Amino acid sequence: MAAIEWIEGGVTAPAGFEAAGVACGVKQSGRKDLALLLTKRAATAAALFTRNGIQAAPVSISRTHAKSGALRAIVVNSGNANACTGQQGAEHALRMVRAAGAALGVSPYEVLVASTGIIGVPLPIELVERGISQAAAKLSRGGHADAAEAILTTDTFAKERAARLMTSSGAVSVGGTAKGSGMIAPNLATMLAFLTTDIAIQPSTLRGLLKRAADASFNAITVDGAMSTNDTVAILANGASGIEFERLRPSERASFGAVLKEVCTALAKLIVRDGEGATKFIEVTVTGAIRSSEARRVARAVAESPLVKAAFFGRDPNWGRIMAAIGSASADLDQSAISVDICGEAVVRSGAGADYDATSLASSLAASEVPVAIDLGRGKSGWTIWTSDLSYEYVRINAEYRT
Amino acid sequence: MAAIEWIEGGVTAPAGFEAAGVACGVKQSGRKDLALLLTKRAATAAALFTRNGIQAAPVSISRTHAKSGALRAIVVNSGNANACTGQQGAEHALRMVRAAGAALGVSPYEVLVASTGIIGVPLPIELVERGISQAAAKLSRGGHADAAEAILTTDTFAKERAARLMTSSGAVSVGGTAKGSGMIAPNLATMLAFLTTDIAIQPSTLRGLLKRAADASFNAITVDGAMSTNDTVAILANGASGIEFERLRPSERASFGAVLKEVCTALAKLIVRDGEGATKFIEVTVTGAIRSSEARRVARAVAESPLVKAAFFGRDPNWGRIMAAIGSASADLDQSAISVDICGEAVVRSGAGADYDATSLASSLAASEVPVAIDLGRGKSGWTIWTSDLSYEYVRINAEYRT
Repeated sequence: MAAIEWIEGGVTAPAGFEAAGVACGVKQSGRKDLALLLTKRAATAAALFTRNGIQAAPVSISRTHAKSGALRAIVVNSGNANACTGQQGAEHALRMVRAAGAALGVSPYEVLVASTGIIGVPLPIELVERGISQAAAKLSRGGHADAAEAILTTDTFAKERAARLMTSSGAVSVGGTAKGSGMIAPNLATMLAFLTTDIAIQPSTLRGLLKRAADASFNAITVDGAMSTNDTVAILANGASGIEFERLRPSERASFGAVLKEVCTALAKLIVRDGEGATKFIEVTVTGAIRSSEARRVARAVAESPLVKAAFFGRDPNWGRIMAAIGSASADLDQSAISVDICGEAVVRSGAGADYDATSLASSLAASEVPVAIDLGRGKSGWTIWTSDLSYEYVRINAEYRT
Repeated sequence: MAAIEWIEGGVTAPAGFEAAGVACGVKQSGRKDLALLLTKRAATAAALFTRNGIQAAPVSISRTHAKSGALRAIVVNSGNANACTGQQGAEHALRMVRAAGAALGVSPYEVLVASTGIIGVPLPIELVERGISQAAAKLSRGGHADAAEAILTTDTFAKERAARLMTSSGAVSVGGTAKGSGMIAPNLATMLAFLTTDIAIQPSTLRGLLKRAADASFNAITVDGAMSTNDTVAILANGASGIEFERLRPSERASFGAVLKEVCTALAKLIVRDGEGATKFIEVTVTGAIRSSEARRVARAVAESPLVKAAFFGRDPNWGRIMAAIGSASADLDQSAISVDICGEAVVRSGAGADYDATSLASSLAASEVPVAIDLGRGKSGWTIWTSDLSYEYVRINAEYRT
């Protein structure tokens, strides 16, 4: 395994990328709301989109554009999701890729578009078009932080990560930025993640790596179980490092996949940490499942149980709620084979309550990280999922937000 | 259709039933925590149990006893769920049916047992056995209210309903009591419902009627989407009215099924109204689905979305969250065919926001009843589900409750 090294920066950490973020007036707060990402040379690309039956206009266009496996730029606005906006919304999304293409000197078909924010309200498209021109004039390698800020909605901090991999042929980098907040933020504009790399790689190979990385990261987090109309994960690979993935040694190829997964995982965890009203970061690990799908189902049921989440907010090691959530996910469990540990403390053994040190566990639960380990005791498959607790603040944010 | 008439009382409204509720000391508060129900003559019976993969000890025993289709008594304790209590729990549940059988002069095999309350803690079985003797001595037709009280946990009020049906052969009655609170109450002891009737009916017929009634009532409510380890719905039919179901006219048989469904629905709605921290009663009706399973899936996704529930707590007609929840339940919707009405106000037409009277809707949302009507616009199937909003109080109850 080659050495993996975390480095400063975000989407422009890999060579050959430029970014910018500006305030164009979609957000009434005057905060940044328009981001551009450009690769100066041709790039292969892959993207994954929401499976929600209702999809925003930009998702339809981006899905088509990503199919070619070649992209040059990404344009994103925050503050308005351009979702449930009918035919007008489709036209606005088209105008965004055209404006970005014109401003950046690339084909509109090489532009991916994403929107996040309020739903059902027409996009103020003239403001967005002006913002695209302004952002294009500001593109720079240092612009990654502005871009990371410009894609946020109710997030409380910008999310960026970058890493470098030393190979026998030289260094390649992977960078990324994401926004999340609620799994659906109040405005429905959920999870966006944009990755970059300066490796050269075939689109189909890139797509496979992205799918595996996203599966173990963005698909392994849940704040409130929701899947938005706008979810988008995309990666651009521009080859500026001069290194070709296909020519790397097998172990180095595996390492590159691992680096991509690590960057995605780091961004996904930042999304959970910034979950609406979150006071705790909860890691639910399931082992001993008969198959991976069972492990996922159980992990998700526990991580999405409002009762389990509220208990952790209250620092209560309520393993009974965990057992009920486990049972709700699978009808044919061997109850007497189940073990549960909270913060390393054995709370369930053989399906019944274990003698645990309540004082020690109480002090562990006061910390911001809560690991929950569930062993179903009947197979060899596992899964890990990350989530946050359910707090008063979650209800406040989601009750007071006004459409 | 014969006349249906609501009457006073609960499980002893039908002839030939007696009930009692006492405080035996399981609840440290000193509140009533032990209920008995007895039919003085032989009765046919049917019962439905939780599909949670982890089931409490009393559920296993009751499932076996209910299979005979003949029961004489029900014994219930609250304050302790006797779940995740291992072999000892199974022995305690057995001791409960034996104690009830001895105190009531019936076979233990004719006794159904249910427990609700804290999980993973051994039942104080001596207290429960003493309580069973005390309750047996107090059995009376007037004891229904004490029994209804004795099955509660975090519920804030007792839930009872009874109705009478006039047939050409005379009157038959259906009575019932239930407890709910959270779909899992904090202590995991969720939904219990006990029905009685003085009609004479074959067990298999009774079971079919109970299944249909429960499907449209107890299975159509959700507070937090959870299914407990202890959920039990049971009915006893003792024939004391002298009327045989099988001899009724077809329309009268249908009416009897309708009355049972109405009693179950009324109890189910009381459970939602008493949902933890609930400030609103939300009715989600889906029409225009291709099949009933689609309508159910969509209704459940909307009713269980914490974002939708928090929005209604905040009196916000956030139809975007409703659309996202609809989309999360079905991947092949025709978005442009969807209509949504909130409190009778058209908020979505053709999949996009409609012009609605925001002032009028805001005042409607201040009321405690919120009807949400969703038309998927592509088929003839529908489903209705009831739920409550997500409030600070829900989080408080579930965070502060101590295991």
